[in-house]
Amino acid sequence: MPLELATIEHELRESPIRKIAALLAESKAHKDIISFGGGAPSLPPPHAVVDEIISSLKKDPFKSMSYTATKGNLSLREEICTDLKKYEKLSIYPVQICLTTGATGAIDLALESIINPGDEIILADPTYAGFPGPGIKERAKLKFIPTKWQENFEIKTELIENLISKKTKALILLSPDNPTGRVLSKETVRAVANFAEDHNFWLITDETYKDIIYEGKHWPAYTFAPENTLSVFTYSKSCSAPAFRLGYIYGPQKAIEAIAKLSQYVNLCPSNISQIGAEAFYKVKKQYLQKTVLPTYRKRMEVMGKMLKKHLPDAGFVKPHGAFYYFVDFSLYLRDLKLNEEKFSEKLLKEKHVVVIPGRYFGQSGRRHCRLTFVSEKESRIKEGIQRIAEFVKRK
Amino acid sequence: MPLELATIEHELRESPIRKIAALLAESKAHKDIISFGGGAPSLPPPHAVVDEIISSLKKDPFKSMSYTATKGNLSLREEICTDLKKYEKLSIYPVQICLTTGATGAIDLALESIINPGDEIILADPTYAGFPGPGIKERAKLKFIPTKWQENFEIKTELIENLISKKTKALILLSPDNPTGRVLSKETVRAVANFAEDHNFWLITDETYKDIIYEGKHWPAYTFAPENTLSVFTYSKSCSAPAFRLGYIYGPQKAIEAIAKLSQYVNLCPSNISQIGAEAFYKVKKQYLQKTVLPTYRKRMEVMGKMLKKHLPDAGFVKPHGAFYYFVDFSLYLRDLKLNEEKFSEKLLKEKHVVVIPGRYFGQSGRRHCRLTFVSEKESRIKEGIQRIAEFVKRK
Repeated sequence: MPLELATIEHELRESPIRKIAALLAESKAHKDIISFGGGAPSLPPPHAVVDEIISSLKKDPFKSMSYTATKGNLSLREEICTDLKKYEKLSIYPVQICLTTGATGAIDLALESIINPGDEIILADPTYAGFPGPGIKERAKLKFIPTKWQENFEIKTELIENLISKKTKALILLSPDNPTGRVLSKETVRAVANFAEDHNFWLITDETYKDIIYEGKHWPAYTFAPENTLSVFTYSKSCSAPAFRLGYIYGPQKAIEAIAKLSQYVNLCPSNISQIGAEAFYKVKKQYLQKTVLPTYRKRMEVMGKMLKKHLPDAGFVKPHGAFYYFVDFSLYLRDLKLNEEKFSEKLLKEKHVVVIPGRYFGQSGRRHCRLTFVSEKESRIKEGIQRIAEFVKRK
Repeated sequence: MPLELATIEHELRESPIRKIAALLAESKAHKDIISFGGGAPSLPPPHAVVDEIISSLKKDPFKSMSYTATKGNLSLREEICTDLKKYEKLSIYPVQICLTTGATGAIDLALESIINPGDEIILADPTYAGFPGPGIKERAKLKFIPTKWQENFEIKTELIENLISKKTKALILLSPDNPTGRVLSKETVRAVANFAEDHNFWLITDETYKDIIYEGKHWPAYTFAPENTLSVFTYSKSCSAPAFRLGYIYGPQKAIEAIAKLSQYVNLCPSNISQIGAEAFYKVKKQYLQKTVLPTYRKRMEVMGKMLKKHLPDAGFVKPHGAFYYFVDFSLYLRDLKLNEEKFSEKLLKEKHVVVIPGRYFGQSGRRHCRLTFVSEKESRIKEGIQRIAEFVKRK
């Protein structure tokens, strides 16, 4: 007889992110796949980062391979403080930073440090597929703010107000957003920060894409409500280094101490090799983003937008202001095809060898939409891919 | 007003492991410190491991830095299966392996996947300071099996029987043990495995030190009760690679699927760089352990044993059969000094510049004991350190 698992195991769904990975793995069986699927960066990390890791491993393999403090090396946390302070003249200290296993581990620790069973968490809908899981893990109740492309996926503050209750313990914001590309306005961030202060709940802000902005400006919530905000970051996208498995949380010192206490039992400490690489990143960060990352992704984003407009005129979408994705409403095409977007994605992959991600993986409001990543393929392949989708939807 | 944290934050103690780290950090202020403190390996990782990481980063930085599957790369999981199968002719498949953030992350995921609030976990006392925390995190009740050096720190099965209740969900075994150096006998492991099967609970076996054995043989519980066992491993000690932050769990496929589902929200995936290094380790593992690790540590272990016997004749201890530590009963000396072992450790550090770890950090039965690591210092320094302790205890 198989032994019993924890009850949360029955409530927790397989992460849609991994369904996506499975789709992509399957797609490799085909020869000429065009992937608008995953959210992995398509660039190598900066040379300086790789070189520093190699030189450190050669010079002192023992030290490079050692344990570090649970919060991470002080020298790296100092670099992080300098980077965060550039948005506003805030006082930010290394005791307010705890390194984590990417943004994934940061979200998990942030929620674990504040959520009691039965607490409520407010989320946007659609939202990153990695947010609901950690909430369920902590036995929280999830409440969603619906958004739509016709309103630029704007988070309407009056809708938030309706969801706030005495049990509200946290609200999660992601800007720039996955899957919608939305960059929150100063007004929205400030309004949400005010709610958090007035109703005494935590803001968890995921700033994974903070350096990947094409239009508008990043307004970090910590500049408005620093005592209520736990901000989450990662090196996976800006530094193109997912294998670092390195991110961090910035917040009030007392909360960071609580998070570090948890991290002792979850991570013990972050990888020293990754910390060595991350520290080297700050020397070249500005140049790498401005000369390599942003121009490359911006061109691809523009090409995809033009192609969508031209070849899929009945698709609904807005141009992303940041991050890696178009979130496209295929309702009119799906109605004609008599398919939901999940079946649509499957058939599109089988018949046209193009990978897109079904919108329902990102929430109820994602139905009849698909997420299309523009960072994985070169411009010519993006053109080809959208043309294939156009052929597919017009064929029937 | 500071915002509320989760209730578990108030129950969770700062890990004694980090108290140790703080002691060590403080100790660096002194010039001539001899450390019998931390449990970090004192050898660099094998050349072949470092070389493979460097060559992979040079050859294909993009691929080396990529995300991988949540469970880890198939090729590494195949190597792991081969390594585990050598103990018995078992069928072990890669679907039964999930890579984790070291043994720390493995213990945390294993418990999170099976424990409901109120479930009971049985542990040895003294035990590794990293075990109670994850139990408290899952809101479990902890029960302890006292052991003593006069009985070779043997885990008496009749004591386990008394602790088993309907709420028993897991029993944690660590062999070779930290802090006692105990290697469990075949009879004990089999008896505990039988209890788990008869009373329908999980065995969590931490095999961190499985390759570091000086006397006796390692008997993995999974050979006796494979359906009831989640076995936890790490590359931190055998491969001298703590900065990999890489370990793994082996268990029944259904449990591993559940663990991988959790890991999606805790780690997303293990570091590809670390996996590349770990895979290279299997090519040199046997030689590295037999030619470098075991001879180095065995010599230090023998020297410390002889010195303890000669210079601290009233200390109670048994020779460790594995791992990195002597767990020494200082009762007779402490009585004369009118100190508990925590104050003793503090004064010893201040006055003689020797670091030892207070036994209470490992549980109630650890009182009046100290843990002395023999892996951190060379033989001459071990001699010097024990002599300093002898001077300290005889002086008053």
